[in-house]
Amino acid sequence: MSLENLLPLELIDKCVGSQIWVIMNSGKEFVGKLIGFDDYVNMVLEEVTEIDPGEGDRKLTKILLNGNNICMMVPGGDGKIVFEDK
Amino acid sequence: MSLENLLPLELIDKCVGSQIWVIMNSGKEFVGKLIGFDDYVNMVLEEVTEIDPGEGDRKLTKILLNGNNICMMVPGGDGKIVFEDK
Amino acid sequence: MSLENLLPLELIDKCVGSQIWVIMNSGKEFVGKLIGFDDYVNMVLEEVTEIDPGEGDRKLTKILLNGNNICMMVPGGDGKIVFEDK
Amino acid sequence: MSLENLLPLELIDKCVGSQIWVIMNSGKEFVGKLIGFDDYVNMVLEEVTEIDPGEGDRKLTKILLNGNNICMMVPGGDGKIVFEDK
Amino acid sequence: MSLENLLPLELIDKCVGSQIWVIMNSGKEFVGKLIGFDDYVNMVLEEVTEIDPGEGDRKLTKILLNGNNICMMVPGGDGKIVFEDK
Amino acid sequence: MSLENLLPLELIDKCVGSQIWVIMNSGKEFVGKLIGFDDYVNMVLEEVTEIDPGEGDRKLTKILLNGNNICMMVPGGDGKIVFEDK
Repeated sequence: MSLENLLPLELIDKCVGSQIWVIMNSGKEFVGKLIGFDDYVNMVLEEVTEIDPGEGDRKLTKILLNGNNICMMVPGGDGKIVFEDK
Repeated sequence: MSLENLLPLELIDKCVGSQIWVIMNSGKEFVGKLIGFDDYVNMVLEEVTEIDPGEGDRKLTKILLNGNNICMMVPGGDGKIVFEDK
Repeated sequence: MSLENLLPLELIDKCVGSQIWVIMNSGKEFVGKLIGFDDYVNMVLEEVTEIDPGEGDRKLTKILLNGNNICMMVPGGDGKIVFEDK
Repeated sequence: MSLENLLPLELIDKCVGSQIWVIMNSGKEFVGKLIGFDDYVNMVLEEVTEIDPGEGDRKLTKILLNGNNICMMVPGGDGKIVFEDK
Repeated sequence: MSLENLLPLELIDKCVGSQIWVIMNSGKEFVGKLIGFDDYVNMVLEEVTEIDPGEGDRKLTKILLNGNNICMMVPGGDGKIVFEDK
Repeated sequence: MSLENLLPLELIDKCVGSQIWVIMNSGKEFVGKLIGFDDYVNMVLEEVTEIDPGEGDRKLTKILLNGNNICMMVPGGDGKIVFEDK
């Protein structure tokens, strides 16, 4: 089992420099390049798109996301969802 | 009593490599294989299905869930619920 | 006053092996046997019933509840409520 | 100014053995005798009344309230509110 | 820049003995005299008015507010809002 | 990759003395000059505008925002949003 074990901070570290998809507790969703993080899972993203199906997407150059309020992070995610058959 | 005592982190540790079912505070539900966690109960899951009865399920290769916002974890759970008679 | 003083973790410790009733922040309610906890008030329950007046109760063998998101714990509680006269 | 200075934990400590009124983040309200607390502002109450104007009050012998999710504590409060003229 | 730098706890410390306006995460708002705080931004207020435009204001002699659940603090604020032209 | 790495607290530190845009968990939004912060991402802002499309903006001289409840911080942001084509 140890071969496939991956710590949360290791996963985040592998994502630095790559695109990630982040969903906040409030439901806000962001796709952008991760350029930094810390032990509290605070993250700095660059070239960000905030995804909002209702209002339309918006672009942000650089943002800080508060780790406290991050719900889920998907490496390489682009916020486009493929649904399965029900 | 000591025979049946089980610490929270011990329970999570026993689940590494196995399927778990996680319900977030926001109501989001995920089933996937646990491949890592830390003392903050942050979790890395692989081969994930996000369960959404309304929108349909979706598949995610690998995700990080923020321990802060996890409500409940069920070992071996598959997100299929058997209701009791009322 | 010292005779009746009872620390939060002492109260939880007295409940190990017994039935407790837990209400989460999100409103979810569980009754089950407490088999472990830690300083963050994370709890492991066994022989659990999730109480849902709307959907019907459901049984879960073993669960982890995240201390962060626990609102209230009632020792010996069974989730059945006796209302007072208004 | 130093004469009137009162630290949060000092205020809670003065309340041990007395009735307090606690409002949780979720809106739940409790009145009961404080019999213990810790540095995380977790509290143990005895002879508790949960105040619910809609459903009617309910009595609970002893409860643990999670400090994380406490919004406000009022020493000596009884949950009965006197409104001012608007 | 260093001349105008002001740390969060320095700002709170300057407010001890003075009136502040606090908005909680849940939307509850309080105006009162700050008589103590700690590193978790827990606050003790005296001569408090809870501001509720819908229900009417209410007076509270002394309260503890949980720092976790404080959203914003305004020094000297009185909860009366002057709107700008749109 | 190391050249473009930027830690969350480094990003905040670069913003001291400049305008930032902060969105709270509750949805509240503020634009103002950052004059201080700490390791918990608590922030002190000056010359603040609370942005409320529904009620109209309001001005606040100086405020403390609780890091716990900050969702996102945008350096140089002015709360004016440019939407992309859908």
